[in-house]
Amino acid sequence: MLQRRTDLAVEEKALREADGELSGVESTRRVREGFSVTEVKILDEAGAARLGKPVGSYVTLELEGLRRREEDAFGRAVRALAAELSTLLKGKGTESVLVVGLGNRAVTPDAVGPLAVGHTLVTRHLVEQMPEQFSAFRPVSAVAAGVLGTTGVESGELVGALCEKLSPDTVIAVDALASRALSRVCTTVQLSDTGIVPGSGVGNARAALNGETLGRPVIAIGVPTVVDGATLAADLLAEAGREDLEPEALRGQAGGVFVTPRDIDERVADLSKVIGWGVSLALQPELTMRDLELLLT
Amino acid sequence: MLQRRTDLAVEEKALREADGELSGVESTRRVREGFSVTEVKILDEAGAARLGKPVGSYVTLELEGLRRREEDAFGRAVRALAAELSTLLKGKGTESVLVVGLGNRAVTPDAVGPLAVGHTLVTRHLVEQMPEQFSAFRPVSAVAAGVLGTTGVESGELVGALCEKLSPDTVIAVDALASRALSRVCTTVQLSDTGIVPGSGVGNARAALNGETLGRPVIAIGVPTVVDGATLAADLLAEAGREDLEPEALRGQAGGVFVTPRDIDERVADLSKVIGWGVSLALQPELTMRDLELLLT
Amino acid sequence: MLQRRTDLAVEEKALREADGELSGVESTRRVREGFSVTEVKILDEAGAARLGKPVGSYVTLELEGLRRREEDAFGRAVRALAAELSTLLKGKGTESVLVVGLGNRAVTPDAVGPLAVGHTLVTRHLVEQMPEQFSAFRPVSAVAAGVLGTTGVESGELVGALCEKLSPDTVIAVDALASRALSRVCTTVQLSDTGIVPGSGVGNARAALNGETLGRPVIAIGVPTVVDGATLAADLLAEAGREDLEPEALRGQAGGVFVTPRDIDERVADLSKVIGWGVSLALQPELTMRDLELLLT
Amino acid sequence: MLQRRTDLAVEEKALREADGELSGVESTRRVREGFSVTEVKILDEAGAARLGKPVGSYVTLELEGLRRREEDAFGRAVRALAAELSTLLKGKGTESVLVVGLGNRAVTPDAVGPLAVGHTLVTRHLVEQMPEQFSAFRPVSAVAAGVLGTTGVESGELVGALCEKLSPDTVIAVDALASRALSRVCTTVQLSDTGIVPGSGVGNARAALNGETLGRPVIAIGVPTVVDGATLAADLLAEAGREDLEPEALRGQAGGVFVTPRDIDERVADLSKVIGWGVSLALQPELTMRDLELLLT
Repeated sequence: MLQRRTDLAVEEKALREADGELSGVESTRRVREGFSVTEVKILDEAGAARLGKPVGSYVTLELEGLRRREEDAFGRAVRALAAELSTLLKGKGTESVLVVGLGNRAVTPDAVGPLAVGHTLVTRHLVEQMPEQFSAFRPVSAVAAGVLGTTGVESGELVGALCEKLSPDTVIAVDALASRALSRVCTTVQLSDTGIVPGSGVGNARAALNGETLGRPVIAIGVPTVVDGATLAADLLAEAGREDLEPEALRGQAGGVFVTPRDIDERVADLSKVIGWGVSLALQPELTMRDLELLLT
Repeated sequence: MLQRRTDLAVEEKALREADGELSGVESTRRVREGFSVTEVKILDEAGAARLGKPVGSYVTLELEGLRRREEDAFGRAVRALAAELSTLLKGKGTESVLVVGLGNRAVTPDAVGPLAVGHTLVTRHLVEQMPEQFSAFRPVSAVAAGVLGTTGVESGELVGALCEKLSPDTVIAVDALASRALSRVCTTVQLSDTGIVPGSGVGNARAALNGETLGRPVIAIGVPTVVDGATLAADLLAEAGREDLEPEALRGQAGGVFVTPRDIDERVADLSKVIGWGVSLALQPELTMRDLELLLT
Repeated sequence: MLQRRTDLAVEEKALREADGELSGVESTRRVREGFSVTEVKILDEAGAARLGKPVGSYVTLELEGLRRREEDAFGRAVRALAAELSTLLKGKGTESVLVVGLGNRAVTPDAVGPLAVGHTLVTRHLVEQMPEQFSAFRPVSAVAAGVLGTTGVESGELVGALCEKLSPDTVIAVDALASRALSRVCTTVQLSDTGIVPGSGVGNARAALNGETLGRPVIAIGVPTVVDGATLAADLLAEAGREDLEPEALRGQAGGVFVTPRDIDERVADLSKVIGWGVSLALQPELTMRDLELLLT
Repeated sequence: MLQRRTDLAVEEKALREADGELSGVESTRRVREGFSVTEVKILDEAGAARLGKPVGSYVTLELEGLRRREEDAFGRAVRALAAELSTLLKGKGTESVLVVGLGNRAVTPDAVGPLAVGHTLVTRHLVEQMPEQFSAFRPVSAVAAGVLGTTGVESGELVGALCEKLSPDTVIAVDALASRALSRVCTTVQLSDTGIVPGSGVGNARAALNGETLGRPVIAIGVPTVVDGATLAADLLAEAGREDLEPEALRGQAGGVFVTPRDIDERVADLSKVIGWGVSLALQPELTMRDLELLLT
């Protein structure tokens, strides 16, 4: 039988709820800047086992209006993401932050991490060189970690090496994810305080980046950019009441097939910018959108 | 019920054959440079009605080995494409040729036309300016026609205007197509002498480019770069014996969902180069692969 | 002796003035949105012979503040360019407009035309398909004309063919220019109502695009993106009082050497956007900057 | 007086020789694969002081024919670079190698490092995961180090962190340089066993990458992609016999003006590929050019 894959806690929860009540998991909804926000909290190991994800908070923003180019949609999305990220960061030591873009710049659905890094305001060098002029800024560095096949270095190794060298208080890791629903591709952003497994979105899971492996809090920002073909097929066949079938149409393609919307290039470009700006606004609360316009474009 | 979409005559034929014998259609297979080649000939209007495509020849090359990076796969693919294209051109007036790349350079699965144009040897200006030195060359021009939404001009209008101005004997049009099978995406090239409807691969059919509209033979070179999501779903449900269902998983997404392989950027880049070089080799039979290496890279 | 090259009327005038008064040329200065604007009018054939440019108006905007990222510099630059362009268009038939980007997208200092076209709001297809909903819009189409060496087709031929097919009332052509002064590179925009000679900025002069060759008014928008190396050398040697020398340092390099600022990629990207938006604002006076934000990004 | 800048030992030597004989410096010429090779050896501190560069070997390849697209020029350039690099590596511990691309991918003349990394065969992950199958390969990793202004992290910090984590035996660092002569831009490659100061080519000198700072041998591969404007001016004025002048034409532009050839995009792309392939061939002597074709394209 085909296995269903999703990196979104909100989808995993919906999937499991169908089988009965979920203990150890709680969920709340709110609206931020006109966008729907769902927070799934995995409270204990029972909940973690149920959802196949570590204990912690998973905040999902649904940025639907962004694609429809609604009035001020970009500004609202940036502010909503910044507000949710600020809440997750609270209480963590965040004097200095390292932002890491995971994924492969040359593969469109995997480029969201490297592109977001390019939209992030970096200040560490300025704060170090001119501490007085930049005393209002938190020192932020940002690096695209590359992918194993093109560098020979695991993302985790690179980030680990940088953590030892730079000693950031917190790491923020941006990566592409897989979703079950086409409607969520490039319209949803998941923030979580549990860290991330690089490459899980596109089928090449690697060593985790989390508090345990890096020795400091890791906030993950993930964007579903693909739907796994086998998951889509499984959903279709489940609807058809034939979960027993292994579809010929996907045979021999496991791991290599992803459903993406046709305008994936444009959507990935848009979301990457929202993330880079949102991170910058959350990390430098003294700045306004207007300041970012001058500093980041 | 979901409708199945394919731009490949070879798939359309297989689909219809299931319903019984096809009159007015004949098909032959051969091997070129180690690659499998299938030629489907639609002989009359009965065959045309059956396959939903105009009377003419449709040659499909299966360039599987290209992806596996087999020994000299690139060279063999270029020579195979050039040989089949030469056969289709035979008998047509081909003293001068205009190569047209259809599709949107900024959308990866739609960029195969513009990219192929960038790999095509253009000679018209040299032949005109230095006719003696370039007497062995056929005058070739090559233009990326853009897309309506970004230019305000139909591809057909632009190509029509250029035909009137440049009076080429033959037009070769390169475009992205839709296939039914994921295994054919970016591994198959279809050549035909029937012209092409720009944008049919990605759901925006426009005025045809063919002998009737342009007043000269139009050879089409198409590469399937996407599978239509609805077609994939229909195939899966047909296998499941539930052709009556309209799958929830794709509802409301019609026209916007395409399945692409994860490495689409790389595949489109590779195939575009095979096409540009193959066209150049077919049009300038005096040249060798080695010459193209010097002239095109 | 080295020859000095500039495509800017304002520089040519300064150069000739050193030799005495200029009859047939008049010049005025004004400020628009905080930017300095100079208009040089070549009034008669005597003036034209003097400056080596056709009779007509040449408006130069100095957008210095844009590079320094001054407050609202982008918005002010767009509005200033739109205002000056509107004045030049006045009295010309401009019911429908074809915008043409000249130059080579793959060569950074030559890419300003193709990039500006990508930032221009195209409406022709919408006005034709939905005339009632788009009755407030002027039909605008926009095409990157490519370069002879990569297409085999002269820009002039392509634009001529499109003029015959689309019959636009006015053509706006965007191209890269050469300047004498490094300080003007990518900070200055020259508008003129005299048409343009494609490629003159980078040393490959072609057939002119102007009223005579295209049968309708041609507004040129040019941006200096390079300083010719020989011109820079000549200026340096003139200062040194040794105009007689032919400098060894540039020998054998004529035509191939251009001085560009180190951040040319970024500057060309910025200016192209100012031009595309400025043209869009001038051609669709009903729209605001805010509307363009929704429509063009 | 304007200061002259060059990163090429061969130019520095020519410049100083004009002032009399150079003790502590020796130079030899040879031909490799049809290309001229000059090796300048700085033998002692006297020589080092004279040329303003550390004691060590500086090998300059003049790849003129590459631009003229001579027969097999690419293959010959790759083999020549690999042969010279192999000689420099000899005697150094090179069981495992880290290749580092310095410079800014988004700025064409500074992109040669990141681009070369993209053309380098990385094997570390394969050797580690499948040691038996890849026993014939040396473990190579390759990383683009980014630039301070876009990451907030010094290249030296990043490379230092990776050296501690990966413990490579040798580091190879690829960077853009400044030359005095336009004719050397993108036609010359300098190899040296003395390490490198990142960003020296484009005016942002940082902490050195060398044996002392990284604790292992550092081979530098540099390509001049720019001529400093002030250096060009100084050379022109020296020829004119007016070394006393500070030219108005460059005033206020110090550090920001670089002369590049017009086809810089294409040249940087070509040279980056030669370097990536040459490094791969030198590091994996079991492989042929043919193998690289299969593995790297």
